[in-house]
Amino acid sequence: MTYEPCTLVLFGATGHLAQTKLYPALHNLYLEGLLPEGLTVVGVGRRLANKEELQQEVARAVAIHSRGDKEVSEDFLSLFHYLQFDLNHEEGFKLLRNYLMRYNHRRFLFYLAIAPASFPIAVEQLQKAGLTKSAGTWPRIAVEKPFGRDLDSAQSLNAKLKASFPADNIYRIDHYLGKEMLQNILVLRFANSLFEPLWNNRYLRKIQLNVLESGSVADRGSYFEQAGALRDMIPSHLMQLLALLAMEPPASLTQEAIASEKVKVLRSLSPLKNENILRGQYVEGELGGKKVPGYRQEPGVSPNSEVETFVSLRLFVNNFRWAQVPFLITTGKRLPQEGAGVIVEFKTPPQVLYFGKYDLEPNLLVIKIQPQEGVFLQFNAKKLASKEQIVPVQMDYCQNCAFPNLSPRAYEHLLRDIFLGDGALFASWEEIETAWEFYDQVLSLSDLGKLPLKPYRAGSWPPVPWLEEDVCKSTIFPCPSQN
Amino acid sequence: MTYEPCTLVLFGATGHLAQTKLYPALHNLYLEGLLPEGLTVVGVGRRLANKEELQQEVARAVAIHSRGDKEVSEDFLSLFHYLQFDLNHEEGFKLLRNYLMRYNHRRFLFYLAIAPASFPIAVEQLQKAGLTKSAGTWPRIAVEKPFGRDLDSAQSLNAKLKASFPADNIYRIDHYLGKEMLQNILVLRFANSLFEPLWNNRYLRKIQLNVLESGSVADRGSYFEQAGALRDMIPSHLMQLLALLAMEPPASLTQEAIASEKVKVLRSLSPLKNENILRGQYVEGELGGKKVPGYRQEPGVSPNSEVETFVSLRLFVNNFRWAQVPFLITTGKRLPQEGAGVIVEFKTPPQVLYFGKYDLEPNLLVIKIQPQEGVFLQFNAKKLASKEQIVPVQMDYCQNCAFPNLSPRAYEHLLRDIFLGDGALFASWEEIETAWEFYDQVLSLSDLGKLPLKPYRAGSWPPVPWLEEDVCKSTIFPCPSQN
Repeated sequence: MTYEPCTLVLFGATGHLAQTKLYPALHNLYLEGLLPEGLTVVGVGRRLANKEELQQEVARAVAIHSRGDKEVSEDFLSLFHYLQFDLNHEEGFKLLRNYLMRYNHRRFLFYLAIAPASFPIAVEQLQKAGLTKSAGTWPRIAVEKPFGRDLDSAQSLNAKLKASFPADNIYRIDHYLGKEMLQNILVLRFANSLFEPLWNNRYLRKIQLNVLESGSVADRGSYFEQAGALRDMIPSHLMQLLALLAMEPPASLTQEAIASEKVKVLRSLSPLKNENILRGQYVEGELGGKKVPGYRQEPGVSPNSEVETFVSLRLFVNNFRWAQVPFLITTGKRLPQEGAGVIVEFKTPPQVLYFGKYDLEPNLLVIKIQPQEGVFLQFNAKKLASKEQIVPVQMDYCQNCAFPNLSPRAYEHLLRDIFLGDGALFASWEEIETAWEFYDQVLSLSDLGKLPLKPYRAGSWPPVPWLEEDVCKSTIFPCPSQN
Repeated sequence: MTYEPCTLVLFGATGHLAQTKLYPALHNLYLEGLLPEGLTVVGVGRRLANKEELQQEVARAVAIHSRGDKEVSEDFLSLFHYLQFDLNHEEGFKLLRNYLMRYNHRRFLFYLAIAPASFPIAVEQLQKAGLTKSAGTWPRIAVEKPFGRDLDSAQSLNAKLKASFPADNIYRIDHYLGKEMLQNILVLRFANSLFEPLWNNRYLRKIQLNVLESGSVADRGSYFEQAGALRDMIPSHLMQLLALLAMEPPASLTQEAIASEKVKVLRSLSPLKNENILRGQYVEGELGGKKVPGYRQEPGVSPNSEVETFVSLRLFVNNFRWAQVPFLITTGKRLPQEGAGVIVEFKTPPQVLYFGKYDLEPNLLVIKIQPQEGVFLQFNAKKLASKEQIVPVQMDYCQNCAFPNLSPRAYEHLLRDIFLGDGALFASWEEIETAWEFYDQVLSLSDLGKLPLKPYRAGSWPPVPWLEEDVCKSTIFPCPSQN
């Protein structure tokens, strides 16, 4: 895989994602010499008038959101061009086609950083404008999550994409897969003999997957009203994480071999029962000593909203390796703690010797995803200087502690890989479809709204039956129901 | 177990061990309120004239060697009394008996901190003086290592002790057993489910036990000429360490149950072959940029000495758990690195996926004994920010890093336990006898002298065939043949 000169056509050039993630990522790749030679970026949007305005906005976005150097050079800004048009007007796409005619190549990457509702129209118009057909590895298209809002809409979007782009040229972005520690999960599991022999229902008691936020829905209220916490996080990010944790060793390290094992995990999920779903919605509360409003008071949110801002699921992967081991998936907003990670809890040894004599904590292996990246183990040791007191202690590997800014953001990995034509860090259609098939049970059954919705005060934990009496009390890692 | 008022009779009160270890330990126990109420210490020696001189020497020893408060109070010094006599003269013991008559109890602890050659005479004389007979838990006797210099001498010393003291009142000191991390080995193994399932020949490739010193024999040349590195360290400290690492789970946590499992390990050792013994002796070399003399030039050492200052053994515990797993025991002086610890090396996963594709290091679990105390794991992870480079990384639990002085010295644990009458941290006669039975093959076969002796330059590693091409190159823990 090598870089070829290409043109990135960015739909949503004036939007939130472009500003907070894509421009800073492009800038860092530029600084590290990881952009293809001869790259140009053609921004498409409605708000700005010309490329000078876009370049100013790029400079401002980098200044605010970059993790590294915040000063942009003229040379970097000169990569950016701009076309102003509305995706709903066919003329815009003609304009785009004419504009792209200046390049004597067809190496276009169309990046849809726009509202999910506009994905189908954009793809349709690209096709009409004759910008899509190709037999080679270009043009490419990158689609942001959410990929559909249920099985039907996902299938229909996928059909549109496949009609216009060769399967290998479609990059379905799940930015969690770009995160350092998600890329590390397979390495941890299959490049070490310490963990894999214990990685099954003989040694593990349960696995928690937590993505906990203290922030509110902020200015994404109207999006959230459509999505909710479950749709927003679980069928995409958290199912990918679960699949990486639970999959069998693949036949090889190719994207196909890995995707096929991930799909097997998703197909092994036992049907989700209503009693294993807990939905919550935050009401007015207190966080960091400040009063904060409830979800129904947030901008863009209905005052009678029944949308969940918190969800915890109790899942079972019903195969030989995992039968009986609960996977507890929890995500939400306005929680007392912030952090994403996996807590693997070991069964305790037989209740003899130390375990018979003392009330000991189980061993934990924690994969820290953010803000810290790394691994820690919690195990039992004799308390220093004591005669026989046993305490849980931590052994820590922090990948980004010393230099938190060194750790590349997910979008740097992902953009680099799309330029290279490497699909390994992207979700395959089969994975997405299987995840939707699974959640469609829940979503179509009730459209979620029929399941109870427990209010919780912003800044406190909703009570989740399967997380009470939990290891959360003993670990230092952010964990539901922890003080 | 409770403290009772008692009298510590310290033979060797003016010697090296008393000054460097016992006085600082007694002082720390005093400061922490862990000495029995009403304790008095009667020092016995030849060099000093009276108790005032001893008290001065105690104060000086604490000032130089204590890890904590170096100022001693008058109250602490007032515990110390002194009798001047030579152990070879019976009159001395009569003097001692008359002196001890002043106590209206028989709670004497005789502590032999003297040259091993004088152990038998001291025990004999105590008996003649009528100070030994008892049916209860007093008087007690504490014997420093080395407990004999071969099976015969150990058996004869033990017979003398047993004739004079009840078995449970004999405390055979192996100060390694007082070290925090040795006490932690059984907790690590049996209070955690992370390690024990992997603790066998299906998952482990080999185990290194290293006690590496950069120092010379210093002023202990004449002792070392009698002992050598093998006798000095291996049948005592390192056999205890090996037994704790290799033993099966005991039926209970009593000293008897643990000792019986340790003995089983020692009895399972395959006979040691000459080709699995490597002896070395340091010659003139360089250490820390300074020229240092060879062993034969050290004070008290014969210029033709054939005594080893380095020894590495390749042992096999021939039982179901450990068959085929080499235990590599290495100890020596004037080495390039300093540190004691255990390096448990895991087998690599099958040569597929990452291990088929890259040249990866095996996983290591390191138990750090000194100077650091703790555990670290070395495992493989994706290198931060790289696309697919895999590197070994460390996950560290350092028990004494933040407060190195908080960690009690071994002798504090041991003295406290003798006062309490708790024998758990002491070597049983059966363990000692079994270790000597094993080493007697080597020692009687050749008296060691017939085995080749490889010279090595002070400050460099002797070449040990079973440690070449080793994990030492990849770990940060002090390890033979490491740069």
